[in-house]
Amino acid sequence: MEQVLARTLPAAEIVPQRLHAAMRYAVLGGGKRVRPLLVFAAGEVAGTHADRLEIAAAAVEMIHAYSLVHDDLPCMDDDVLRRGKPTVHVEFDEATALLVGDSLQSLAFQLLAQYPLAHDAHKQLEMVTLLAVAAGSRGMAGGQAIDLASVGKTLSLPELELMHIHKTGALIRAAVMLGALCGELSAAKMAKLDHFAKCIGLAFQVVDDVLDAEASTATLGKTAGKDAQQNKPTYVSLLGVAQAKALAERLRQDAQDALDGFGAKAQRLRALADFIVLRSF
Amino acid sequence: MEQVLARTLPAAEIVPQRLHAAMRYAVLGGGKRVRPLLVFAAGEVAGTHADRLEIAAAAVEMIHAYSLVHDDLPCMDDDVLRRGKPTVHVEFDEATALLVGDSLQSLAFQLLAQYPLAHDAHKQLEMVTLLAVAAGSRGMAGGQAIDLASVGKTLSLPELELMHIHKTGALIRAAVMLGALCGELSAAKMAKLDHFAKCIGLAFQVVDDVLDAEASTATLGKTAGKDAQQNKPTYVSLLGVAQAKALAERLRQDAQDALDGFGAKAQRLRALADFIVLRSF
Repeated sequence: MEQVLARTLPAAEIVPQRLHAAMRYAVLGGGKRVRPLLVFAAGEVAGTHADRLEIAAAAVEMIHAYSLVHDDLPCMDDDVLRRGKPTVHVEFDEATALLVGDSLQSLAFQLLAQYPLAHDAHKQLEMVTLLAVAAGSRGMAGGQAIDLASVGKTLSLPELELMHIHKTGALIRAAVMLGALCGELSAAKMAKLDHFAKCIGLAFQVVDDVLDAEASTATLGKTAGKDAQQNKPTYVSLLGVAQAKALAERLRQDAQDALDGFGAKAQRLRALADFIVLRSF
Repeated sequence: MEQVLARTLPAAEIVPQRLHAAMRYAVLGGGKRVRPLLVFAAGEVAGTHADRLEIAAAAVEMIHAYSLVHDDLPCMDDDVLRRGKPTVHVEFDEATALLVGDSLQSLAFQLLAQYPLAHDAHKQLEMVTLLAVAAGSRGMAGGQAIDLASVGKTLSLPELELMHIHKTGALIRAAVMLGALCGELSAAKMAKLDHFAKCIGLAFQVVDDVLDAEASTATLGKTAGKDAQQNKPTYVSLLGVAQAKALAERLRQDAQDALDGFGAKAQRLRALADFIVLRSF
């Protein structure tokens, strides 16, 4: 995956060099690559080729990387550390970070459109639509907006869930769906994968909140304790650590149940659901 | 076109409301709609339906609108006035403006993928790729990066041209090409349209530089004289007003010549080339 990302990003020698260097810094700086792993694991369930999956995975990861660069900007979370390194606007400058995010988003859609990824072009257009909706104002970017509006407010559990279904869930769901769409799967199985994706998307955020509350900056690779500091509503602030952990575990179990009937092909998806929830507690 | 834009933007009542209100403010706040007009005029040459063209036109205008919102941000041009109204980050806030731009970009690709726009889906995927390249680091966003790097520097005429071919030219070219791709046109005629688009794209920027140097803020609807104030290289700073005007006129003539052989169908494209160059001098 690292090689695919390195190959699909413009070379740092191409004009404008500084922008391309910054794009590579933003994407190639490590990260767990959870979304690409989900694309591959879902593709395995649907039976398809790695060369399709690696492009779809790169597209999803470009969207994820752009969102991190923009989220770290001073007008958003104002964070200086990401994956253990200075954030893009600290290492380069704010204007460059803005353009890095903008360009990574364009690149994601370019990748999804210019290589043959599905067995027919109509289906591939569906994939473009799916990623666009997941990234946009009714998906990830909308989740950020809900997040901004909720700082300092007390949210109910359903309100918090609505925020995270947008903010993190939409792109995680897109990763699973895009992987599956690279292959062939019945509508019934797509619906099961959809449910699986929703469960792990939410679990991912619950675990993130727990980690932010418990972990140190060194372990996390980004500034820890920011949520409480910024008075942001989280699963921990709403439920406490113990109940938040129990919720994550319930979601993990739900996700596993959704894969019943997929057989051995779903082994990697199962392992990822476990990884997402159990990664640090 | 205004109705199409109003219809394709998410309603202000949909969650997250503030983001959607800001997206509508950014896009529906007037503007010359040059790019949509180019989509329609090119579509007329290629013979296609208005319902295809209006979606392609909306997609291009969403990209243009996003770029204006991000360009106006404090870390970029730091402008407070656009189309005679407060810029998005002034009317709303910086974080919202950032998300407005991000969401408008996603929406552009959603529009281009989810409606049937070309006679086959492969061609439509080509349209998505074309817009993504035009918007990204080797197109419009890249042009912004070159622009940032050139502030306070003396550029040669070829360097200035390279910047504008990216910054303004790429999206204007995309508008013409997307309109044509909604219909049917020979490769030879596509190449002619391509040349036409490059000429008017460059002419557009030359005229913008002249207008910025000559017009008042009231006429322009945005802060005038910003280029000189920010010590930005422009066609006027490089050539002087008279020679810049002569260059625009030469480009206009070149653009007209590229349309020879298209007959009466190219009437609107011809009129737009004239409009772009002659709009204020």
